[in-house]
Amino acid sequence: MSSLDNVLGSIKPVAIVSHEATNSPAAWREAVEADPATPKPFELIKVLVYKPKTAKSATPQPLVIIAREGTEINANLVAKKLGVKEVRLASEDLLTEFFSLDKNSLTPLALNESNFSKTTTVIETAITNSDTVYGVHALSSSETIFLSGKEIYAYLSRFESQDASLQDLNFEAIKVEVETGGAAKPKAAPAEKAKEDAKIEGAVQIAIGIKKEVDFAGWYTNVLVKADMLDYYNVSGCYILRPWSYSIWEIIQDWFNAKIRAMGVQNAYFPMFVSSKVLEREKDHIEGFSPEVAWVTRAGNSELEEPIAIRPTSETVMYPYYAKWIKSHRDLPLKLNQWNSVVRWEFKNPQPFLRTREFLWQEGHTAHLTKPEADAEVREILDLYRRVYEELLAVPVIPGVKSEKEKFAGGLYTTTVEGFVPTTGRGIQGATSHCLGQNFSRPEMFNIFVEDPADPTGQGKTYVWQNSWGLSTRVIGVMVMTHGDNQGLVLPPRIACIQVVVVPCGITAKTGEEARKAINDMCEQLAESLKKVGVKAKADLREGYTPGFKFNDWEQKGVPLRLEIGPADLAKQQTLSVRRDTGVKSPLPLGDITTTVPQLLETIQADMFRRAKEMYDSRVKEITRWEDVVPTLDDKCVVAIPWCEEEACEDDIKERSGRAAEPQDERAPSAGAKSLCIPFDQSRWTPIEPGKTKCPACGKDAKRWTLFGRSY
Amino acid sequence: MSSLDNVLGSIKPVAIVSHEATNSPAAWREAVEADPATPKPFELIKVLVYKPKTAKSATPQPLVIIAREGTEINANLVAKKLGVKEVRLASEDLLTEFFSLDKNSLTPLALNESNFSKTTTVIETAITNSDTVYGVHALSSSETIFLSGKEIYAYLSRFESQDASLQDLNFEAIKVEVETGGAAKPKAAPAEKAKEDAKIEGAVQIAIGIKKEVDFAGWYTNVLVKADMLDYYNVSGCYILRPWSYSIWEIIQDWFNAKIRAMGVQNAYFPMFVSSKVLEREKDHIEGFSPEVAWVTRAGNSELEEPIAIRPTSETVMYPYYAKWIKSHRDLPLKLNQWNSVVRWEFKNPQPFLRTREFLWQEGHTAHLTKPEADAEVREILDLYRRVYEELLAVPVIPGVKSEKEKFAGGLYTTTVEGFVPTTGRGIQGATSHCLGQNFSRPEMFNIFVEDPADPTGQGKTYVWQNSWGLSTRVIGVMVMTHGDNQGLVLPPRIACIQVVVVPCGITAKTGEEARKAINDMCEQLAESLKKVGVKAKADLREGYTPGFKFNDWEQKGVPLRLEIGPADLAKQQTLSVRRDTGVKSPLPLGDITTTVPQLLETIQADMFRRAKEMYDSRVKEITRWEDVVPTLDDKCVVAIPWCEEEACEDDIKERSGRAAEPQDERAPSAGAKSLCIPFDQSRWTPIEPGKTKCPACGKDAKRWTLFGRSY
Repeated sequence: MSSLDNVLGSIKPVAIVSHEATNSPAAWREAVEADPATPKPFELIKVLVYKPKTAKSATPQPLVIIAREGTEINANLVAKKLGVKEVRLASEDLLTEFFSLDKNSLTPLALNESNFSKTTTVIETAITNSDTVYGVHALSSSETIFLSGKEIYAYLSRFESQDASLQDLNFEAIKVEVETGGAAKPKAAPAEKAKEDAKIEGAVQIAIGIKKEVDFAGWYTNVLVKADMLDYYNVSGCYILRPWSYSIWEIIQDWFNAKIRAMGVQNAYFPMFVSSKVLEREKDHIEGFSPEVAWVTRAGNSELEEPIAIRPTSETVMYPYYAKWIKSHRDLPLKLNQWNSVVRWEFKNPQPFLRTREFLWQEGHTAHLTKPEADAEVREILDLYRRVYEELLAVPVIPGVKSEKEKFAGGLYTTTVEGFVPTTGRGIQGATSHCLGQNFSRPEMFNIFVEDPADPTGQGKTYVWQNSWGLSTRVIGVMVMTHGDNQGLVLPPRIACIQVVVVPCGITAKTGEEARKAINDMCEQLAESLKKVGVKAKADLREGYTPGFKFNDWEQKGVPLRLEIGPADLAKQQTLSVRRDTGVKSPLPLGDITTTVPQLLETIQADMFRRAKEMYDSRVKEITRWEDVVPTLDDKCVVAIPWCEEEACEDDIKERSGRAAEPQDERAPSAGAKSLCIPFDQSRWTPIEPGKTKCPACGKDAKRWTLFGRSY
Repeated sequence: MSSLDNVLGSIKPVAIVSHEATNSPAAWREAVEADPATPKPFELIKVLVYKPKTAKSATPQPLVIIAREGTEINANLVAKKLGVKEVRLASEDLLTEFFSLDKNSLTPLALNESNFSKTTTVIETAITNSDTVYGVHALSSSETIFLSGKEIYAYLSRFESQDASLQDLNFEAIKVEVETGGAAKPKAAPAEKAKEDAKIEGAVQIAIGIKKEVDFAGWYTNVLVKADMLDYYNVSGCYILRPWSYSIWEIIQDWFNAKIRAMGVQNAYFPMFVSSKVLEREKDHIEGFSPEVAWVTRAGNSELEEPIAIRPTSETVMYPYYAKWIKSHRDLPLKLNQWNSVVRWEFKNPQPFLRTREFLWQEGHTAHLTKPEADAEVREILDLYRRVYEELLAVPVIPGVKSEKEKFAGGLYTTTVEGFVPTTGRGIQGATSHCLGQNFSRPEMFNIFVEDPADPTGQGKTYVWQNSWGLSTRVIGVMVMTHGDNQGLVLPPRIACIQVVVVPCGITAKTGEEARKAINDMCEQLAESLKKVGVKAKADLREGYTPGFKFNDWEQKGVPLRLEIGPADLAKQQTLSVRRDTGVKSPLPLGDITTTVPQLLETIQADMFRRAKEMYDSRVKEITRWEDVVPTLDDKCVVAIPWCEEEACEDDIKERSGRAAEPQDERAPSAGAKSLCIPFDQSRWTPIEPGKTKCPACGKDAKRWTLFGRSY
């Protein structure tokens, strides 16, 4: 490895993984994914080398294209853009000659002082400023080294010289240019287009560097990181919730706590550890979790007698004590909730907020004397979840019940609020409220019963009816995906920890001290008077930053409303308001600012929800013929079909709606469709005629309209 | 073991542990403690058998005494109390004859149908209704079986018959009777005494069953369990925080969050996992924790490549990211806080709230440009901790700085608020605020620096000054120990989740429906009107419970004020108020109840603090001669000595103040004294004359008055 060390120099790789030699991209990915030492998430880097048309006499100058594995490359277009003559894929000889590597070992690390200047090297823009971890061949097809995009870019930049510069390009954008033939899509008129490319090239006015429409996953993580919501952590699948996102969670906690307290729910805290014996008490339940359970086996230097699990959820932690505490029907209902973190050691690619190994949530666990009581609470809680999404986060959801296949393991039935991510056209489970029935209270399970008050003999036992319900920090991820744009985050006012930022403008070198002070004071006063009426306002009086920088900074962070105050505004006793969601600017007189701003914030909140709702509704398609299902999914929609509600049929639908051709990565747009939920509100679709309306998938009698979609 | 199975019948032991045969109580304890399978905490049961003076002709009827290992037994007194003739320790022959066991194997389980009636068996009262786990010999000196006190009592009760009853006695109480010669101590006048014993026998009016003065540890756990604050959990060292205690924590959280927000501290959440590499970065620091770190080594069925630690505290979790986020002095100060749980796998006996393997706390971590800034914050936070104790929990504390020996591992200096538990005379660390100096920011550590804004060249680096500070749920334990009494918990009004309970009284079978309703309605109205003025009031209208039961129930749970309403009160438009802290009763006119009750609650809060403060102050003794130190400690006081502040001297003091004769269990009253803190307020003691005043321990020059005491 010493040769590699020389190559890397000061660069510290995230990880180095050895594996069998691989001779195809697919084999390569498989090999590294198999190794637990591989950091997750990661992407692979492909290096394509082309030989330009070259006079016999001359030595060819290869075109080296460094791109993310998923990026489609049109080599001739790239060549054209770089002014390189028409190209074809380089021969093994050429590769050996230039890099002393075969095509299966090609890597950016093959470039060095001596050969860089003899090539035309171009790297995908998205890589250059990215914290994403990329795998590249470690000068061999049997070893992979993981570096951040920035590090790869830094490594290559070292070799730049006057006669050899490292260029970066957005290959997708070039593709788009061509596909649209530069034609006038509203958002792709040539001028417009140029501006957009400029953005991608990283000019100031774009915060994010990756376009939402082009590389959603890259955009998403960039937004989170650049908005200071989250940072990556050196334990894979775990993330740091920075104040900008945690404050959203605190607002949700306060709101939800008030609501459940009114329902008689009390907060408590149960231990994070659970013994294997107890954990495995409820078989169906634990089967759902056991592959993901993290086990503590050692303390200090001593091995534990018995490994102890970290809770993946707390049913089995709590219910032995429910059995102890519930002695009489007078002890019912018992309603406890806790705000805690749980651990599910996912081996799928983690995604911030959506799929993480440790996550924050609340879990409510209640016990009732009768089923009707339990049923009522399940729905009452679900409606609180709907309101968290719709009233706080301005994210529309569809409440319904899960299919048997998708319900909570060990429960009786599961209700859910289902969200939707328009950019990918995929559904996402928002939060779930489960009725566990008597499955956990049964004698052979946790044996939670009371004397049946109805039974005169006093001998009869009633096993309690239980619910559990949970809402996690996932809500934050869904909100970001729904509202964010290419400038960054867009926060609905109600969950923004800063709702209004006041920025002093028009202060130049020529501005006198007095005028400068007057403007700053006015900004301060404005913020203060807004705070007095309960608006979370902040005056950004930081020295040494231009207004432009501040605008961009707060836009990235999604502050709903910006108020600018310059000399002219001061004179007119007004401020220029700029909406983050629409960019709409309008002057506001300072006189009635304490009424107009709160109103404007409520308008923004309402508009954001309305737009998101319209989008969601427009993407839920009523489908009655199978042949329309896949095209509709491919069209980034979810389908509502009159469904037979049979599990075999659900499996079949998933099978037939996936594109077998492509890898079955859950995150791939090609994944098969799952049932999302059976909406409670069936009225929006053509009434089902019993016996007449058939399930488009299997032809059996349809029962209820059910949403199917690709999903997170 | 089958013979043992027969003996146990339906009793399910907590654990059964095999070990080498032991021939002394000490050896026995050592053997079981060595075994990780031994449940913690546990106590051992000793069985003493005596032969009463018996006529040669008659068969002796042995006196069997079953007591906790720590209980001193005066056999003759016990005999006298039971009307058994004078006794002496039974011979091995007698033991074999009656129990076919040698003295090293004696156990309650040796009693059975056939021999019980031939003995006089007496069991210590504290065992009979206790959930404590006790170890008893499993019919052999090489096997120990763990049962709850209740189970042992249940086991023995089975053998009771008309001519053989199982008696229970409080051996300590008997001892007291004798020591005081029944003389008239204020609290031990014969009548009084009798009443108190009665309580101990478990009459209704005593909630707790164990007296605070007699068995503090037993009393403490009983209070917690009976007040529904806490329940034991089947993973040793972990406890369930039930709503009655968790609500106290929530009140503290709200108060503290408001205060630190005003200081510019933001809440965040960092992962609970930390890689071994990072954890071990700061050696001194980790040395302090590594023996207690819990390690995750397995997820599902796959072993992790590298074991991952669960945070014992988050310095090493956070600081790599502080290094990343802090790029310029403009990024300072950085002030983050998180509310989370941490894990320290203690192998000492755990105690609810005071020493648990998982506990809840807040940990603040801040970075500053200059030392003065950091110093100021350390003290500002410490004062907030003082106020949590004194203003919310009505628990007095003494703020000061820790000795070098007792400071936070890896830090620069540690400030602390030191509490005191009068019943045991032991000090307890309340909360700590550490200045870490630049120890964690150093280049070889986490390398957290900014360009020195003072340096004109812009080349100079300044390593940041860091603080960390934490307050844990321990505060709840200290509050319980301070205020609780033999009726149970006593809550200061400001942290009580129910401050006032309204109980309808004087409703009898003869009371007409109308009168009954009138009283209940009045109780409801009263509670409602109190709620309107912000008093946390509740009307206890539960059917089927007597007022007496309700009084006792709410007293156990420590509700600060009870308001009774009976027919007479109704007529007079008044209510009878009963203070939980003093028992003082006084009628309150309903007319101005919304002003009198809030005032009364504030009075209760103030009185509780004043009494606790007076007690603490009276137990801090100014000591200047070594010979007075140990007697003063034995007298349940802490000593203030003019100290040299040298570590060797501190070790020496601990050594010399422990009673070598007794086992060095941290919890034993005999443990050596540690330095608690060097109080900031030195003014309460005779001024130290530099060069003149000497350290009473080593004779060197004294520097500052320092508190030493036995401690938790």
